Amino acid sequence: MTEPYELTACDALDRIRAKDLSAEELLQSCLARIEVLEPKIGAWAHIDSKGALAAARKVGAAMPGAMLGIPIGVKDVIETADMPTEYGSPIFKGHQPATDAACVMSAKEEGAIILGKTITQPFACSGLVRTANPLNTDHTSGGSSSGSAAAVAAKMIPVAIGTQSASSTIRPSSYNGLVGMRPSLGLISVSGFKPYTASCDTIGLMGRSVDDVELLWTSLMRLPFQRGRRPKQTPVFGVTRPSWLAKAEQSARDAVDKAERLLSSAGAEVRDISLPDSFNELPEIHEQIHDYEGARSYAYEYVHHRDELDPRVRGLIERGRALPTETYLDYMAKAAEGRALFPSVIAGCDCLVTAAAPGEAPKGWNALGDKFQTMGDPMQSRTWSILQLPIVTIPCHTGPAGLPVGIQLIGRYGSDLQLLSVARWAASVLAERPAMATS
Amino acid sequence: MTEPYELTACDALDRIRAKDLSAEELLQSCLARIEVLEPKIGAWAHIDSKGALAAARKVGAAMPGAMLGIPIGVKDVIETADMPTEYGSPIFKGHQPATDAACVMSAKEEGAIILGKTITQPFACSGLVRTANPLNTDHTSGGSSSGSAAAVAAKMIPVAIGTQSASSTIRPSSYNGLVGMRPSLGLISVSGFKPYTASCDTIGLMGRSVDDVELLWTSLMRLPFQRGRRPKQTPVFGVTRPSWLAKAEQSARDAVDKAERLLSSAGAEVRDISLPDSFNELPEIHEQIHDYEGARSYAYEYVHHRDELDPRVRGLIERGRALPTETYLDYMAKAAEGRALFPSVIAGCDCLVTAAAPGEAPKGWNALGDKFQTMGDPMQSRTWSILQLPIVTIPCHTGPAGLPVGIQLIGRYGSDLQLLSVARWAASVLAERPAMATS
Repeated sequence: MTEPYELTACDALDRIRAKDLSAEELLQSCLARIEVLEPKIGAWAHIDSKGALAAARKVGAAMPGAMLGIPIGVKDVIETADMPTEYGSPIFKGHQPATDAACVMSAKEEGAIILGKTITQPFACSGLVRTANPLNTDHTSGGSSSGSAAAVAAKMIPVAIGTQSASSTIRPSSYNGLVGMRPSLGLISVSGFKPYTASCDTIGLMGRSVDDVELLWTSLMRLPFQRGRRPKQTPVFGVTRPSWLAKAEQSARDAVDKAERLLSSAGAEVRDISLPDSFNELPEIHEQIHDYEGARSYAYEYVHHRDELDPRVRGLIERGRALPTETYLDYMAKAAEGRALFPSVIAGCDCLVTAAAPGEAPKGWNALGDKFQTMGDPMQSRTWSILQLPIVTIPCHTGPAGLPVGIQLIGRYGSDLQLLSVARWAASVLAERPAMATS
Repeated sequence: MTEPYELTACDALDRIRAKDLSAEELLQSCLARIEVLEPKIGAWAHIDSKGALAAARKVGAAMPGAMLGIPIGVKDVIETADMPTEYGSPIFKGHQPATDAACVMSAKEEGAIILGKTITQPFACSGLVRTANPLNTDHTSGGSSSGSAAAVAAKMIPVAIGTQSASSTIRPSSYNGLVGMRPSLGLISVSGFKPYTASCDTIGLMGRSVDDVELLWTSLMRLPFQRGRRPKQTPVFGVTRPSWLAKAEQSARDAVDKAERLLSSAGAEVRDISLPDSFNELPEIHEQIHDYEGARSYAYEYVHHRDELDPRVRGLIERGRALPTETYLDYMAKAAEGRALFPSVIAGCDCLVTAAAPGEAPKGWNALGDKFQTMGDPMQSRTWSILQLPIVTIPCHTGPAGLPVGIQLIGRYGSDLQLLSVARWAASVLAERPAMATS
């Protein structure tokens, strides 16, 4: 028999609606799962079992709410009024915000149960965490939405909220064999997410199926959800191998090749898209804008808590402070040019297709054995983040260590819903189920 | 002899650097001025004389800092670590943020002294406040940056920080005879300004001269300041009379006519610019996007503190909650089209010129005599706010009640520094010094 924790959000919701499963039974199953796996995984910064149980017990099968009774995790850079929010930093140890972030309120208003706060790299930026990859606990879960990805991959919860400013949702989703989504910038309110870089900060969504991610996205957007929606026509995919793909591992390039082959075999038109030369600068432009804006967002922490900052974050802030404003403004203008150019790049295609991450999740703990040595590199997503575009990642390939390598589908600004339907089509073709060592 | 409180920021700075004036003397003069006028004006939500004096006493004439020793006020929707931040709402009575907002840190790092928090309409949105116009205390200061505008106009401080999401800096600046600036969206970090509408929220700047506003802008942007910078060529002004100018008072239209006449007489080329028909929808589009996004940003307050919300704010949130997301997305697409079209509208001109406000500051207290009946209408600025453009307002005209009516100059996105130099040129032509009843 399927345990409730194994259900996708959509399946669980159907059973709650049908009175085959109560929200409390689902939550208890998830809590039991967490009790077993959390010591190995380390996905959670805070768990509010009591509050979640109280909320679950109030759920009636006939109540409204697109996510009625579905337990979710929220990345700990997103503010919650009834749980601490520590932004992954000792500077905010025990910090209690006064209000819930906009996305938390939207999820609650749709009946979701906020089970807890998930581990994040400090300030959703950089620094090391202990969250292990449930598919192989010698490997990192990635970051910065480390805990959200691991909790969903470990089936502790069906879906989770993260954030993305560089690759913080797409990369850990790829590492954990998940479907991950970074929406078009600005469409889901970031109010209550302490900003790092306003030019790139978005809420991120993670699930184990395209349906579940679409359920979460439509809930946060307050749009109608229609399970299993397919594109009106067979999609046209624009496969692209940017200059920075050469810096990835072979498994990332293999994932793109495999996607191209399988999508084409399944009857889709697949075009080879060359990016304009000016796009070669975009990863560097993203990095500089990220650091410049982050240095402003975290000026208080830098000046007043310098010694408590993770040295990696401190280094990025210092780099951002050293960047002349004139250079920043020049980069901002170039980023805007890239956004204006993108419609001609994607012309004729439903989405671009490229590698979601530089390969499999990296292996190896630090010397103390309490954190991973690296969370992986954001290079493959920087360009799409600074272009403010919607991205969906789906599993595609398995690398030499037996871990998943995803592809990312990149859509036009504002085409999020259509991109999800195209991702569903692609996922049905590429279906690859990573095995979980810990299950 | 000129009292120190009467000095512009630039003049005060020169005297501090020359050791003709100490930062403490300047601050004491401002505090004495506040003590006399504050009971009549009501500009301040919180004053930290002790903290400000301690900071002023540490100022040495040879220290670095582009705003060394200059006392400023900060609108009380902007977070401060050492003063409460109440967002103009009883919900946040005594609320103490953990950190300083990015703009507060930038000002402090340039040597400015944060004297206190200025009165704001609740959440920089709507609702009534008591802040009187120093030029005639029977009239409102406007809003939502009510206290910042009044404090600068009353010469309690030389410059102040506000915000603008609709017309919250430009309109009160016009009502108080000030120079006001709303920068291009995103260039000054809004981190630590509790968002209302991320598509429009900016920090706003106010002073009694273009030089002072430019000093504040360059300080917050960490760019070099060069006093009295003039445009390289005689500017070309595009005077525009949008359809919504018909809804303004005659004095607003007179201000535009006067500006056109005087700028032209002074040797500038003045063109008559007709806006595209699609721009007629932009005020409504701004309003709907503002309300939709605000409803998300303030969902927690709406659900948990509904009775403590100002009825006007509650009404806007309810309107935002009722707006279908599909309609919001359609408006967002139209706003983006307007942004893409703007370069062709302004082609050949350095800036557009139009009325900054619907007329003079409205008169009249509410029934209890503790708040004004109205803060004025944002109609004249909605379009430029949703287009995310830089705006500078300068005094131009005097209306029938003897109060100032400004014009606003609107520039291309990112042209903020050039716009300031054009504003300086225009201000020297239009120089109109409103008399202050309370001085």
